[in-house]
Amino acid sequence: MQFHHNGYVSADPRVEPAAGAGIDRPSQMPDVMDVLIVGAGPAGIITAAQLSQFPDVHTRIIDRRPGRLEIGQADGIQSRTVETFQAFGFAEQITAEAYIIKETTFWNPDPQNPERIIRTDRTPDDPTGVSEFPHLVVNQARVIDYFAQFAANSPARTVPDYGWDFKELSVEEGQEYPVKVTLVGCGEDNEGLERVVRAKYVVGADGARSNVRRSIGAKLSGDKANHAWGVMDTLGLTNFPDVRTKCAIHSKAGSILLIPREGGQLFRLYVDLGEVPEGDNGKVRETPLEEIIERAKAILNPYSLEVKDVAWHSVYEVGHRLADRFDDVPVEEIGTREPRVFITGDACHTHSAKAGQGMNVSMQDGFNLAWKLGYVLSGQAPDSLLRTYSDERKVIAKDLIDFDKKWSSIMAATPEELVGQEGVAEFYVRTAEFPAGFMTEYAASELTAGKDHQELAAGFPMGKRFRSSQVMRVADVNPKHLGHHHRADGRYRIYVFADQQPVGQFEQLAELSRWLLEDEQSPVVRFTPKGADADALFDIKVIYQQDYTTMNVNDAPKVFRPNVGQFGLMDYEKVYTALEDSDIFDERQVSREGAIVIVRPDMYVANILPLSARDELASFFAPIMREQA
Amino acid sequence: MQFHHNGYVSADPRVEPAAGAGIDRPSQMPDVMDVLIVGAGPAGIITAAQLSQFPDVHTRIIDRRPGRLEIGQADGIQSRTVETFQAFGFAEQITAEAYIIKETTFWNPDPQNPERIIRTDRTPDDPTGVSEFPHLVVNQARVIDYFAQFAANSPARTVPDYGWDFKELSVEEGQEYPVKVTLVGCGEDNEGLERVVRAKYVVGADGARSNVRRSIGAKLSGDKANHAWGVMDTLGLTNFPDVRTKCAIHSKAGSILLIPREGGQLFRLYVDLGEVPEGDNGKVRETPLEEIIERAKAILNPYSLEVKDVAWHSVYEVGHRLADRFDDVPVEEIGTREPRVFITGDACHTHSAKAGQGMNVSMQDGFNLAWKLGYVLSGQAPDSLLRTYSDERKVIAKDLIDFDKKWSSIMAATPEELVGQEGVAEFYVRTAEFPAGFMTEYAASELTAGKDHQELAAGFPMGKRFRSSQVMRVADVNPKHLGHHHRADGRYRIYVFADQQPVGQFEQLAELSRWLLEDEQSPVVRFTPKGADADALFDIKVIYQQDYTTMNVNDAPKVFRPNVGQFGLMDYEKVYTALEDSDIFDERQVSREGAIVIVRPDMYVANILPLSARDELASFFAPIMREQA
Ligand SMILES: Cc1cc2nc3c(=O)[nH]c(=O)nc-3n(C[C@H](O)[C@H](O)[C@H](O)COP(=O)(O)OP(=O)(O)OC[C@H]3O[C@@H](n4cnc5c(N)ncnc54)[C@H](O)[C@@H]3O)c2cc1C
Ligand SMILES: Cc1cc2nc3c(=O)[nH]c(=O)nc-3n(C[C@H](O)[C@H](O)[C@H](O)COP(=O)(O)OP(=O)(O)OC[C@H]3O[C@@H](n4cnc5c(N)ncnc54)[C@H](O)[C@@H]3O)c2cc1C
Repeated sequence: MQFHHNGYVSADPRVEPAAGAGIDRPSQMPDVMDVLIVGAGPAGIITAAQLSQFPDVHTRIIDRRPGRLEIGQADGIQSRTVETFQAFGFAEQITAEAYIIKETTFWNPDPQNPERIIRTDRTPDDPTGVSEFPHLVVNQARVIDYFAQFAANSPARTVPDYGWDFKELSVEEGQEYPVKVTLVGCGEDNEGLERVVRAKYVVGADGARSNVRRSIGAKLSGDKANHAWGVMDTLGLTNFPDVRTKCAIHSKAGSILLIPREGGQLFRLYVDLGEVPEGDNGKVRETPLEEIIERAKAILNPYSLEVKDVAWHSVYEVGHRLADRFDDVPVEEIGTREPRVFITGDACHTHSAKAGQGMNVSMQDGFNLAWKLGYVLSGQAPDSLLRTYSDERKVIAKDLIDFDKKWSSIMAATPEELVGQEGVAEFYVRTAEFPAGFMTEYAASELTAGKDHQELAAGFPMGKRFRSSQVMRVADVNPKHLGHHHRADGRYRIYVFADQQPVGQFEQLAELSRWLLEDEQSPVVRFTPKGADADALFDIKVIYQQDYTTMNVNDAPKVFRPNVGQFGLMDYEKVYTALEDSDIFDERQVSREGAIVIVRPDMYVANILPLSARDELASFFAPIMREQA
Repeated sequence: MQFHHNGYVSADPRVEPAAGAGIDRPSQMPDVMDVLIVGAGPAGIITAAQLSQFPDVHTRIIDRRPGRLEIGQADGIQSRTVETFQAFGFAEQITAEAYIIKETTFWNPDPQNPERIIRTDRTPDDPTGVSEFPHLVVNQARVIDYFAQFAANSPARTVPDYGWDFKELSVEEGQEYPVKVTLVGCGEDNEGLERVVRAKYVVGADGARSNVRRSIGAKLSGDKANHAWGVMDTLGLTNFPDVRTKCAIHSKAGSILLIPREGGQLFRLYVDLGEVPEGDNGKVRETPLEEIIERAKAILNPYSLEVKDVAWHSVYEVGHRLADRFDDVPVEEIGTREPRVFITGDACHTHSAKAGQGMNVSMQDGFNLAWKLGYVLSGQAPDSLLRTYSDERKVIAKDLIDFDKKWSSIMAATPEELVGQEGVAEFYVRTAEFPAGFMTEYAASELTAGKDHQELAAGFPMGKRFRSSQVMRVADVNPKHLGHHHRADGRYRIYVFADQQPVGQFEQLAELSRWLLEDEQSPVVRFTPKGADADALFDIKVIYQQDYTTMNVNDAPKVFRPNVGQFGLMDYEKVYTALEDSDIFDERQVSREGAIVIVRPDMYVANILPLSARDELASFFAPIMREQA
């Protein structure tokens, strides 16, 4: 965490100084704003949190709820999401209060006595060690709390406006604030009050029944029918031994997905209620709690379950559905105008709860969109950047739905149906990277280079999230996870992996530093706002191959030691060496000739280049950034 | 973290439900209270934090400051202290914002050119791996903040009353609130207002010039003269390469201890100003900042230092001094009455800042005292328990002062003076356990058994702090540090290390469980308040030797799976097994025949017993606890 550099910070350093829109931010809903986010669920709140790092952008986030979400909804947090929390600075804190999934056990009918279940398998949750972060279970409400805290502590000081119901919108191009939005108050003080406000951009993060989606005429396609689960957050007594382990239970009487919850005693049961017949018209949602409990008891036979308290329950009814586009530009108009309205999260894709994806993927939608909006609104990027949101995220949503279909059908199958097919446990292990959130791989585009130089850093697959590894920070001799210094501050990361020359005699790096800092083709020179710190837009770090004891931090070329802040102090946190016992060059197969790895603000590998590449470096950023006057 | 067991906790689980004195706690200073703590520095605030876990105890903590400490004073945090933070639930959070010391470098005159300094040594900070916790640097103000937060979130909801100056006290035995205290307001609303309040106990945590110490007639002895350092928290530009590493610098021009600080750029320089002549009368404290800066520049030659901002500076003048007693009972009255007033922290011991001990030892004073006060005031212990505070902590303070004298003289010596003697770096490595805070070893007493059974668990030295090791929590298959589940909740821990019988067939453990839960000699039966949960006073855990896959959590005897809270839910977090790859039985040399290890609320090993010991277990607790009606 860096602070104190503009003068002493006495209290919590997580509270950044207010700036721009954060100074005198109106506490009441104003008439105009840069971005209006509809919905303070996971998709909306991460968008607000990320945008709050852009002080020039005035963001409002509304929700029809009277206040924070208190209980219920999703609770499964993939390791990719925890990695994201890390970038927002609260991974440790939320992990400390979460349940950590280490194993999943599988229960099936006892062949000797098929009326009873027995444990048939036990699989580690992250068999391939795909991430240094755990797989968590913690209520959606707490996830939202932490992002809201981050948004409030960020320079733009964004806080939700509760008690506003979005009704409709229309886009009137040519105006400064082209999106006209009608809201109706549903809070204590504003009940029934109709307000028309105007925004430059609107983000529909308003869940599965999205009105924003309806307003822009996007169409859902997918399943006709829904699948239903009785969900209950339970406090109770049981002699079932795995009540604190994640379990997939199949019995003659049905199936249960058991998810232990944070706090030591609560557990969630997903009791499968099967396909919902067409024309059910929500009748399944009236399934009484007692019936769900009875079913659960039957499935758990021979184990007992005495329910003491049900903290929350719901019949969660959902189908696989995908919106035909994620913004307001119909196919035929693509290229003629740029999007003004976006939909994210459940508003554009829904699927089962079984693989625990909904909240996670929704957050990644918001993370993808928010920095792009921030760049465009701060004048750092042309507005064509905004097209890439729908392009990139539609593919991901489609993959997710395909995976989830396979997953749910396997989870729902009876043991007999699985005979001869891949079993639940096998499927689970083979596909572990998917539910952990690491299968996102953006295709080549303006934002993601092709794989021409992939061999220079094979362990950083192009288009996938930058996978961290440990390195030694030279200045303070602290081993650090390189990737954990990627904060959600909206900046691109440029990692320069040095070649094997002795530090100081390394002309190629000194040359690169000079070029980056001085050449008029350099993206740092062209795109960094005048008067801003040299690392305002690009956080450029170097990783040497040598042992740290053979060098001083001051040996590194200047681009890796910029002077920043009001006192022009040197930044000591950009110069690293490989560790002896876990060498990042080996772990991530980085060429000993060196390489440049470029990572997007939302943590995906955007480009890999040889150390000598100047033109490619310059031309990569040219279309996605805006020259600064 | 355990919560939800009395019903769903929607917001931050670190905020515990208010109880007892925490319900309707008066916001203004009342006339009477159980405990009055004078001083909200490290010693006072940890006392308040721990006492706030005792809902029956009404604690007030005053400070003459108008509000929180904002800057300055100490900043070195030993690993023992971070371990303590862990018990108070904020180790991860404070570590995330702290500087982590990994190495110390030593700089001395260059033999070729003695006017210039060169790096002569580099030593790891924790060469022997004494703790799983790091050695931190973070400002005292933040440490106090975190404890204050914990106190406010605890059941008794303790918050400091700022703006009250302690004047004097007298003890009038025989009254319900025997300590009469005179305070004078020095806040905005109470300026000059004199108040007399009464308390059952007073804790003087009012620093080196303690008025509480004066009031009870305790005498300081030790150095006549002081030693002075110019201390400055600096933001600046330098080409000295180790400005982000802890350094001990000796040059012809004097010596500096350089401490990198949290946040990435701030560093603290302790510039040695030498012995203060008797009769100096504070003149050294008028040393101008400019002079300190000039000295620092001369010492750092040939490196440059351009100071941009000094966030805080002070001339810290201190001698080695120790109070003759730490409570209000003079030697001749010991045994005739129990103490009513205590002094802690700098109020009873002072020494140099060089070994970074002051704040750390002061907190351990408070941690030692607070649970004892909590027990006595809740009726769980006889008031004779309170004698042990002075007995235990005086020895520690004396050891500290002896260590610090040696340490400061070595640090202050010129290279010539050290020729033929042990060098700085060697002394540093050899004694690392001391400054890390792990040399405290309470002698045999009512609270600490003798070493009769030490061989049953050689790795848990009697009287030293319980050194954690990893184990597997059976219910959720999570590897956990056993010691990290020792929260600062005032409870004794009883760790039962099982022998090699297969789980379930292990009669000795089942017997022990029955005895603990049912026998009238059992401390659990005798001392647990009626109607309270079975683990209200004693947190009893079991560690099996077997692999976790060979057992179910329900196989463990009942004392390790108590039913707790309003719903009588089972506690799943007391049953562990050894890990295959780091077996606690090997790591801590625990007998394969099993052992019982008892740990005090402040984390020190209090007793080690064979599994079969009943009488010894019963008689150990008899004098220190109070039978419950
Ligand atoms: C009742 C319920 C139960 C669920 N149960 C589970 C579960 O058991 N397991 C699981 O994995 N997933 C569950 N989910 C799904 C999971 O919560 C979602 O995948 C995830 O929340 C998606 O995040 P989101 O931000 O896109 O949408 P949401 O979390 O749905 O957030 C949308 C937000 O927009 C607000 N909003 C909606 N319309 C308007 C409007 N017109 N004006 C203003 N505000 C509006 C809503 O109040 C809400 O706060 C559940 C969802 C719901 C709604
Ligand atoms: C100015 C100063 C600079 C220091 N610099 C360093 C340093 O550079 N390095 C280092 O290692 N250590 C330093 N120390 C020492 C270190 O801070 C102490 O060892 C540590 O704070 C001890 O904690 P404590 O709680 O016992 O006392 P303190 O932290 O001194 O706390 C005592 C508290 O009591 C309050 N108080 C005092 N008298 C009264 C009264 N009559 N009524 C009400 N409240 C009262 C004070 O306002 C204060 O908040 C410094 C101490 C001081 C005071």
